[in-house]
Amino acid sequence: MEIPRLKARGESSATKVDFAEYTPELLPFLGQAAAVHLEVAENLARALAAAPSLETKQGISYAASQVLATQHKLVAEIRALHADPDALMRPFAEALERYRTLATGSDWRELLLTCYLSAGMLGDFFEQLARGIGGDVGKRVATLLAADAGAEELRQLLQSAINADPQLTSSLAMWGRRLVGDTLLVARSALANVDSPGSAAHHAAEANIEPVFTELIAAHTRRMDGLGLTA
Amino acid sequence: MEIPRLKARGESSATKVDFAEYTPELLPFLGQAAAVHLEVAENLARALAAAPSLETKQGISYAASQVLATQHKLVAEIRALHADPDALMRPFAEALERYRTLATGSDWRELLLTCYLSAGMLGDFFEQLARGIGGDVGKRVATLLAADAGAEELRQLLQSAINADPQLTSSLAMWGRRLVGDTLLVARSALANVDSPGSAAHHAAEANIEPVFTELIAAHTRRMDGLGLTA
Repeated sequence: MEIPRLKARGESSATKVDFAEYTPELLPFLGQAAAVHLEVAENLARALAAAPSLETKQGISYAASQVLATQHKLVAEIRALHADPDALMRPFAEALERYRTLATGSDWRELLLTCYLSAGMLGDFFEQLARGIGGDVGKRVATLLAADAGAEELRQLLQSAINADPQLTSSLAMWGRRLVGDTLLVARSALANVDSPGSAAHHAAEANIEPVFTELIAAHTRRMDGLGLTA
Repeated sequence: MEIPRLKARGESSATKVDFAEYTPELLPFLGQAAAVHLEVAENLARALAAAPSLETKQGISYAASQVLATQHKLVAEIRALHADPDALMRPFAEALERYRTLATGSDWRELLLTCYLSAGMLGDFFEQLARGIGGDVGKRVATLLAADAGAEELRQLLQSAINADPQLTSSLAMWGRRLVGDTLLVARSALANVDSPGSAAHHAAEANIEPVFTELIAAHTRRMDGLGLTA
């Protein structure tokens, strides 16, 4: 069996961590990935409804259909394993509802930024977990999540919104920073499912996992930079 | 050129009407069809966000992705004709916004019934117009709309909601009846775009078009009956 390793995203080889012992079981992993993507789809649905113009609604609809396609493929993987997608997603519903409340924002543009940033961070994280899980399913899911469904559409929509109203920059920059912590908590909860008797002590685990989160935050910062939201 | 005729849906040949003179131009037609389907998608998005359980959200997500796929194909037909989808949809935005306010309902189950019934009636109507328009595009669009995107998923979700709460029957039955008038107005507005100099007088047009609306209402009643909502 290959030893699953965290894909190094940065230049530094220090971000290479043996992720194997924190890798969740396949079915709970798929359930959480499907629940997280349903949450992203729901946020996109709310942004679509809240967006004021037909043009923006149309743009969001393209991102939404890509995220839905990804979510439906995750559900199909669960079904192919003869498991019940609803039952596997349900344990994550409450935490995601809490996240939804925190991540809604005060405006459709903040909500859209939530969709873009949370899909990015959580997509990256679940892609790495899928790589760690390996096997046919893990590889397929990693490839699926690597496609960053809807990300480019969302980036363009956000860029247009910022161009149309440069005043937005500071409030969106603040909003993006606020999101990081809550989104990392959702990611971390996927690791909490690992309950193998041989797992390292909590302290060691934190130290081992830290580079993964450092890299997630670095990718988040690159997304923010890409939108000029670093001020 | 073939003479476009209303597809007879009932048994009676009396419902066969020469629809040609009320048929809108291709581009405004595609714009309105795309706008109407974006509206249905938006209502589904709101229902997805409003639905209380993960299972229902998941179910609605399947209907939503089918409606989005249909809407995106309509937009692709517009683009293939080198026209601007946003500009062609915009004239219908205000009327659809008014419709949205009327058709929201007081509860996610009423909103879901709106999605099912309005997609059904408007889908049927635009399918018939597409048939009247004819040509390659008209035929492709008629086939696309004949597929009733998401209808079976929505019917099942509504049936489950009614089974879970039989008290719903009377309020949903009333809601379904209330929707008819406003939905027919949206359909009728597609005909109002016809402004050909040789068009029949308003009075004659009403008489000619009536059988089409009678058949739309009959199909609506069959959908209601199918859900046990006739009481």
